Amino acid sequence: MATGTLPSVVNRYKVHLTLFLLIYIGPLNCQQFVIPFKAPSDCSAEEFFDISSLSCVRCGSNQRRSTTGLSCICKTGYQTLTTDKASITCQQCPTDKPSVTTGGFGCIRCPGSLSDEGKCQCPPGNVLVERDVKGNLLEEASCVMCNGNSPDLSVPNHSGDRCERCQASFINTSCLCNPPNVLAEGLCFPPGSLSTNVNPSVNYAELKFSVQSAWFIKNLYSSSAACLVFSNLTACQALGNMCVMNMHSFSGVSTDACGLFNTIFRSRAALSSTQDISYWRVNLPWLYYGDEPGLASRVLQTDPVPIRFSFRGRNKNTDIKLLAAVYNVRGEFLRWEQVGGRNLQLCPETTTRQAAAFSFGTAYQESCDLSVAELLGTHPEPMFYDVFMDLGGGENRKLLPLPTLVYNQQYNGRFINQESMKNWYLSRRMFVVDTLSGREKSTDSLPKVIRVASSVKIRFQLVPRTQEGQVFTPLMTVTYKDVLITDINTQTVTTTFAVEYEMDQNEARIKTDTALGVMGGVAVLYSLLKTVSWKRRIASPLIDVETMLKFFLFYAGDLANVFFAVTVGTGLYWLILYKAQQFVSVLLPLPAQEGQFVTYIGCAFALKAVQFLHKLILQVSIDVFFIDWERPRSKANRTVQATGEPKRDPSPVSIWRTYFVANEWNEIQTIRKISPTFQIMAVLFFLEVLGFSNLALRDPWPTLQRSSQAYTPSYSLMLRYGLAATLWLCIGLLQVIFFTVFHEHFVEDKIRQFVDLCSISNISVLLLSHRCFGYYIHGRSVHGHADTNMEEMNNNLNRESESLCGQRGLLPNTEIQTFQVSLTNRLRSQYDRIREQINRRHGPSRLMDACSANQFEQRARGYQTMNHFLGSIIDHAYPDMDYIVKDKLMFERVIGMEFLEPSEKSIFYNDEAHSFSDVLFYGNEATLLIFDTLFFCVVDLGSQSFVLAAVLTCVQQMIFRLIRNTLGRKNLVRKTLVDERFLI
Amino acid sequence: MATGTLPSVVNRYKVHLTLFLLIYIGPLNCQQFVIPFKAPSDCSAEEFFDISSLSCVRCGSNQRRSTTGLSCICKTGYQTLTTDKASITCQQCPTDKPSVTTGGFGCIRCPGSLSDEGKCQCPPGNVLVERDVKGNLLEEASCVMCNGNSPDLSVPNHSGDRCERCQASFINTSCLCNPPNVLAEGLCFPPGSLSTNVNPSVNYAELKFSVQSAWFIKNLYSSSAACLVFSNLTACQALGNMCVMNMHSFSGVSTDACGLFNTIFRSRAALSSTQDISYWRVNLPWLYYGDEPGLASRVLQTDPVPIRFSFRGRNKNTDIKLLAAVYNVRGEFLRWEQVGGRNLQLCPETTTRQAAAFSFGTAYQESCDLSVAELLGTHPEPMFYDVFMDLGGGENRKLLPLPTLVYNQQYNGRFINQESMKNWYLSRRMFVVDTLSGREKSTDSLPKVIRVASSVKIRFQLVPRTQEGQVFTPLMTVTYKDVLITDINTQTVTTTFAVEYEMDQNEARIKTDTALGVMGGVAVLYSLLKTVSWKRRIASPLIDVETMLKFFLFYAGDLANVFFAVTVGTGLYWLILYKAQQFVSVLLPLPAQEGQFVTYIGCAFALKAVQFLHKLILQVSIDVFFIDWERPRSKANRTVQATGEPKRDPSPVSIWRTYFVANEWNEIQTIRKISPTFQIMAVLFFLEVLGFSNLALRDPWPTLQRSSQAYTPSYSLMLRYGLAATLWLCIGLLQVIFFTVFHEHFVEDKIRQFVDLCSISNISVLLLSHRCFGYYIHGRSVHGHADTNMEEMNNNLNRESESLCGQRGLLPNTEIQTFQVSLTNRLRSQYDRIREQINRRHGPSRLMDACSANQFEQRARGYQTMNHFLGSIIDHAYPDMDYIVKDKLMFERVIGMEFLEPSEKSIFYNDEAHSFSDVLFYGNEATLLIFDTLFFCVVDLGSQSFVLAAVLTCVQQMIFRLIRNTLGRKNLVRKTLVDERFLI
Repeated sequence: MATGTLPSVVNRYKVHLTLFLLIYIGPLNCQQFVIPFKAPSDCSAEEFFDISSLSCVRCGSNQRRSTTGLSCICKTGYQTLTTDKASITCQQCPTDKPSVTTGGFGCIRCPGSLSDEGKCQCPPGNVLVERDVKGNLLEEASCVMCNGNSPDLSVPNHSGDRCERCQASFINTSCLCNPPNVLAEGLCFPPGSLSTNVNPSVNYAELKFSVQSAWFIKNLYSSSAACLVFSNLTACQALGNMCVMNMHSFSGVSTDACGLFNTIFRSRAALSSTQDISYWRVNLPWLYYGDEPGLASRVLQTDPVPIRFSFRGRNKNTDIKLLAAVYNVRGEFLRWEQVGGRNLQLCPETTTRQAAAFSFGTAYQESCDLSVAELLGTHPEPMFYDVFMDLGGGENRKLLPLPTLVYNQQYNGRFINQESMKNWYLSRRMFVVDTLSGREKSTDSLPKVIRVASSVKIRFQLVPRTQEGQVFTPLMTVTYKDVLITDINTQTVTTTFAVEYEMDQNEARIKTDTALGVMGGVAVLYSLLKTVSWKRRIASPLIDVETMLKFFLFYAGDLANVFFAVTVGTGLYWLILYKAQQFVSVLLPLPAQEGQFVTYIGCAFALKAVQFLHKLILQVSIDVFFIDWERPRSKANRTVQATGEPKRDPSPVSIWRTYFVANEWNEIQTIRKISPTFQIMAVLFFLEVLGFSNLALRDPWPTLQRSSQAYTPSYSLMLRYGLAATLWLCIGLLQVIFFTVFHEHFVEDKIRQFVDLCSISNISVLLLSHRCFGYYIHGRSVHGHADTNMEEMNNNLNRESESLCGQRGLLPNTEIQTFQVSLTNRLRSQYDRIREQINRRHGPSRLMDACSANQFEQRARGYQTMNHFLGSIIDHAYPDMDYIVKDKLMFERVIGMEFLEPSEKSIFYNDEAHSFSDVLFYGNEATLLIFDTLFFCVVDLGSQSFVLAAVLTCVQQMIFRLIRNTLGRKNLVRKTLVDERFLI
Repeated sequence: MATGTLPSVVNRYKVHLTLFLLIYIGPLNCQQFVIPFKAPSDCSAEEFFDISSLSCVRCGSNQRRSTTGLSCICKTGYQTLTTDKASITCQQCPTDKPSVTTGGFGCIRCPGSLSDEGKCQCPPGNVLVERDVKGNLLEEASCVMCNGNSPDLSVPNHSGDRCERCQASFINTSCLCNPPNVLAEGLCFPPGSLSTNVNPSVNYAELKFSVQSAWFIKNLYSSSAACLVFSNLTACQALGNMCVMNMHSFSGVSTDACGLFNTIFRSRAALSSTQDISYWRVNLPWLYYGDEPGLASRVLQTDPVPIRFSFRGRNKNTDIKLLAAVYNVRGEFLRWEQVGGRNLQLCPETTTRQAAAFSFGTAYQESCDLSVAELLGTHPEPMFYDVFMDLGGGENRKLLPLPTLVYNQQYNGRFINQESMKNWYLSRRMFVVDTLSGREKSTDSLPKVIRVASSVKIRFQLVPRTQEGQVFTPLMTVTYKDVLITDINTQTVTTTFAVEYEMDQNEARIKTDTALGVMGGVAVLYSLLKTVSWKRRIASPLIDVETMLKFFLFYAGDLANVFFAVTVGTGLYWLILYKAQQFVSVLLPLPAQEGQFVTYIGCAFALKAVQFLHKLILQVSIDVFFIDWERPRSKANRTVQATGEPKRDPSPVSIWRTYFVANEWNEIQTIRKISPTFQIMAVLFFLEVLGFSNLALRDPWPTLQRSSQAYTPSYSLMLRYGLAATLWLCIGLLQVIFFTVFHEHFVEDKIRQFVDLCSISNISVLLLSHRCFGYYIHGRSVHGHADTNMEEMNNNLNRESESLCGQRGLLPNTEIQTFQVSLTNRLRSQYDRIREQINRRHGPSRLMDACSANQFEQRARGYQTMNHFLGSIIDHAYPDMDYIVKDKLMFERVIGMEFLEPSEKSIFYNDEAHSFSDVLFYGNEATLLIFDTLFFCVVDLGSQSFVLAAVLTCVQQMIFRLIRNTLGRKNLVRKTLVDERFLI
């Protein structure tokens, strides 16, 4: 083949070849540089795998491939001659020296038989000698018996070519472990030290079977015996590890790993304990705390750790330093290791994120599915961790052992650690992945079961009422999971590593409940007051079912406010206190502890919805009438008698002003003190764009922008609610302030505009929200007439702006045009009689179509009568239905109730605050705002999505606005006879 | 200490002790189970580290600690007696046998001197013999010289206690490598094979220095020589690896790693090449493709890979299978390894996410910062990967070698791979982390520099015009980064692993540009037409600057539409084609290729904004007049002469109907055919809540919900735009259809309501949008009078609904009330004259305050005149300003231009489509919708946040609505003299 010096020729040739191959052989071979795939195992016995060309290459003559398959070696009976080039040469050994030496380079005679590989073989206890001391090859190899007697005490070494000293435990017995001594794992134990009847099974309670573990069979007896008899430190650790692999579980028998450990533990009772800890016996690992009932709570909730955690300031300290003493499965101490990084956190995550687990206050949880095949590769044997908390202290560095709660630990068949705390049996030492104990045949076979720490949780508990960030001894809870191996390539295991922070929430709960109780009580009183006020306003003294219902409706609203105030207060309290504290004094409630809070929010929302619907229904059923003060210009028929037919007078009073006023009244039904769309957008902007939502994360950092590299904890429902509700209320309040202070003074005030319009159009409005209570807008034109042309209108307006005419008030020389009215029963009865005439359409509907025109005339006459009647009332024309005008007392305003009962005369209360807007959305901004807030928060709590909450809140607002507008318009049509077509 | 049997006593004691300590010693010691921290290195020379108690324990007498520090051994000169218990006992050796045997258990006499450790010492080339062949301990040890001569050829073994055969390369020279032979790394090379003058430096071009690498010093010569002389496969690989560690760089000298490799490469030219690939010489690794110019493009862009990728269907194939032959730094072949998982992807990620890199079509990129300390721990020595693509094929599995482009590769000092493709010098074999070559003193020291593959990028290029998902040979680009080690604990390295997909975008770009050109040309014509129409409507034949300006304004709008259509079309094309294709035939443009597209969107937005503002300005400056048909009921002053002063007639025509109509006209200014809030909310709902935004991810899966465990690729700007614009337009269109088809027919049609209102209120509206063109709404009441009371209004309405009166049309017996009007010049001049009277306020403003009332009277008179004048025109009262009514031709409607010029008579075109809404927002929905779409998309492209885009779009809509309303109202006040206070 050409060697790249003539590329163009080569390439042209290749193109032709390619085309040729393309046509005849198909596309698989047309690629320029395609090579066949070969692995070492693909090569036959006479081939070796050439690591340069990645292909199988035939060996030379008399050769076969080596065990790795990467080179050739001489066949059995052939000696190697040269090896200096890439290939070797082989030569058959002469018949007088038929065997090949150990290195393969020489031939030798054998004293005995040959092995399958063509080497000399010696009987057991003998060594094979091929060279003399100087390295000279012997003509004939010899087999030599090692001298096992004292003081030489030698046995053949591992490769059988030399005599070595035998193991120390044999020394008394001359390298032979004769019965009754017991030989186990190369050690010789004196008789009677430990029964050889041990139980090497590992119990998989979850899978309901146990495995005779190869590792336990091999090591359990020898480790126990070596620990007990020789006090071998490593053997004791290895025994402890086996107990840990059995998840610290005691069964009835004392011959399993933990049973043996306990036997030895008890046997050491006479000796002093290690480090002054009575559960830690000399030479043994510390595996258990005592089994006294209640010890767990004493250990976990008595003494604070002498470290103060602080989130900011000079003494900022948020580092949780955990150290682990690491042992391998054979009991050897490997090193001290910082917990973090890769040891206990199995999930692959960046170092930065994993480090977040050890930043105090950050609720950490990482979960992932790990492939079993990968676990087998990365964890061929388990590591054991004794975890300590590093208390620091420079030279005299101190460590605090972390108690471990093995969730699956069994105690005589009971899962005691899943019971209440007083039964807990704390322990120490844990492992993360154990693929060893489940191997049944040999320690190299595929395990039948593997055991994985599916959940490792470190829980910190704050000392109650601490102001200095003190915590109790942290608890480590480990849950192991047994995975039956079926197909390692598809199986996965879910593992979780979590750090939790907890404080006693009882105090907070009691405070919340107290607040709820107290405020709930006040709410009862307030609702009672409202009910009494309502009874008075409908002028009904009876306490009937309706009263009860009304009370409950009022109470729903007040209770909703109480719940709302308490929940927002709590949320905000946590938000501020948790995110702003210096020394740690509060910790967030755990997700499981948030249930009650969510219930409260649910209650608040449900009750608020009831209140909102109640108000909506009241608003769309109020009684409204427009009183037209305009009189015809021709003095002919000043008073239209209800009895006589109205003549077609040449110049009737135009209805267009009434239409105008009605139209405007219809338009202000759903205006609000805020812009709902802006509200939603602003909240969304703050939460999602500016990143305020990050404040609700379960960590103590009040930062808005998080790096995408950093760990993101989960959200706290409580903080989320506190944040969303506060933000919504704040933006709402700012908007209300902006609209009521700035916008309505300098841009446009729809309510005032309406009042002005009434005055200019010479039309008064009477609104009756209750039977004997309502509002009156006095709109009598100061010019006497309003039904005029543009020029005169303009003159009138100019005159008024220059104060050339009277004032608009009901009483002479006053400005006050708006009143709350308490009517007498008599007046209301009279009103109802005339109203009946107007509403007659709702009578026999069968005849409606036939006589609708006629009927309308009847109703129009009723309208005229009503107009005249109400005009006369206002003009004090009926002495028996007279009224007085007075100011409301301050106290009356505050509690929203009138003290005087209008028995003789109706009472008109001056009302400069335009409180008639109470029958519009405008006057109920608080209810609407709170309802929207709760709606937004409830959707968010359900979906954990502020965007969805915003969308649904917007839709909800649209729907209710539509309902309010439609029903309000229908009500207006029914009550004022203004045709629906003019309410556009 | 008590042993746990009396816990309460113990505890009580401890509490007391705790209190005592708390007071006197401070809180650090008050914890129950605190232990001091000790590591093996903390123990003194006479102590060992007790792995059970984790503390330092003193050794027995005559003992010292072992090297690990975990146990005690006898002091020098002491033999070990017993070891069966945890501790050992030591005994001094007798003076006649002062030395301790190797195992430490016996004492022996020495032939020579003693070592520091008290053992016997032999001269070099000798072995120490302490036992005889049978294992019997000798009284006196002996030193024996190994026989190095042929055929025994033995030398002392590693531990110096036995004679072994010497290395094969020595065999010709009797285990001595005498000059002129060269001894290197245990090998003996014949003279003249290779100059020993090699350059063991590793060059760090980025840091501008080189390091004399310990590894290179040790191995470069021996590997080269063994490769050249002995054709040692492993040595050749090791040499190749050293060249790779030098980033394949050639310098001028031929004594560095790559120079030596090339020397050997050239020396093999005579032999046949491996696997028929001329760049792959026998026994050598394949490191380079040829250096012929242009080879890179031939390799990368000539032959498609014989694999077809398909996203769905029966032949679904998205798996990219890459295999790597893995070698260690010593040149040993380790295994074939599937690329993926942990080998090339350094960042810690879950297996699922990492696997996404090898799913065809998913743009993959993972970056992270890795701690240098961690890298040093996990990569003590580099691994080398020869990457192949697995072509499959069952038994005859084929591999395609992936060419690698080393971005930092130098060729005689030039970074040729950073130049254009024709200079590229492709190579093979790569490493990921090399912490070895930067070690200067020894291979165990801390490296001075480490080299990390900071970016590994695999690029797939689609075969142009393929319909079967074929790609060219993928290219792997590796960029190495040199990190100078200063502080391993804080230093980090950023690494990236990316998979990119590319196709030739020229064709698409040409198509786009063609479409733009063609449509742009059409737009010119259309804009010209519009300009002509405009000229005609303002009745001006001159072509002046204003005409040019107008043309450009029209052209801006049309060009914006062209850009918009092309960009949305392109975005949608990519969205549909890319996400829906079965066989891969298109791939997304890379982020770098999206620039032009973004420019087009910018143009579209800017031009659309110009058009929108232009329309806005036109709309707030139209001429409007309300013609009141109502005449006073008393016949006295039928005609008010403009000359005489108007008398105060007793029953003037009420202005309230005009107020009502003006108020309604004011209210419909900004109504639209869609609900803007709902529009935004719906778009947000689809994108963010339903997860449509996931469609814009750079992968081929059209799924909306992604698992949080799965890999999330980056967003494609093009898809994002296509998606957002399409969604916005679709929801907008659906809304328009809903509102125009359903809502306006069954619920409420504000435009029709306004026309009806005109009719009922007996008021016509004349709108002049151009000088001689406008709209006329005929509102003459069929009842003659509208200024009447409720009863009569109701009668009138009833009569009309029962068809008892005439029809509302302008012509008798027609229904058509709305017209487009082309006025004659004369009529317009007359109109302007009267209009001047009304607008006089804008003349001398200095006197305004003084005579405002008087002035208003003047203007009101003007108003009356205008009213009368226009009424007369409609009534055909002026023969010289008469008009005709006709239908518009279909073609006239389509192109929006009138063919007839109104020279003699004005022309009223019937217009049932209410085209007067063109002067409202309502009639310009298309412009508004497109403007909003573009605004939304532009904000999103800038911020990559749909939420921010939604918020800003909403605010933008609010602002423009406010502007339109405010200016529109002002215009209305100015033109119709209706007081602003009535426009509420």
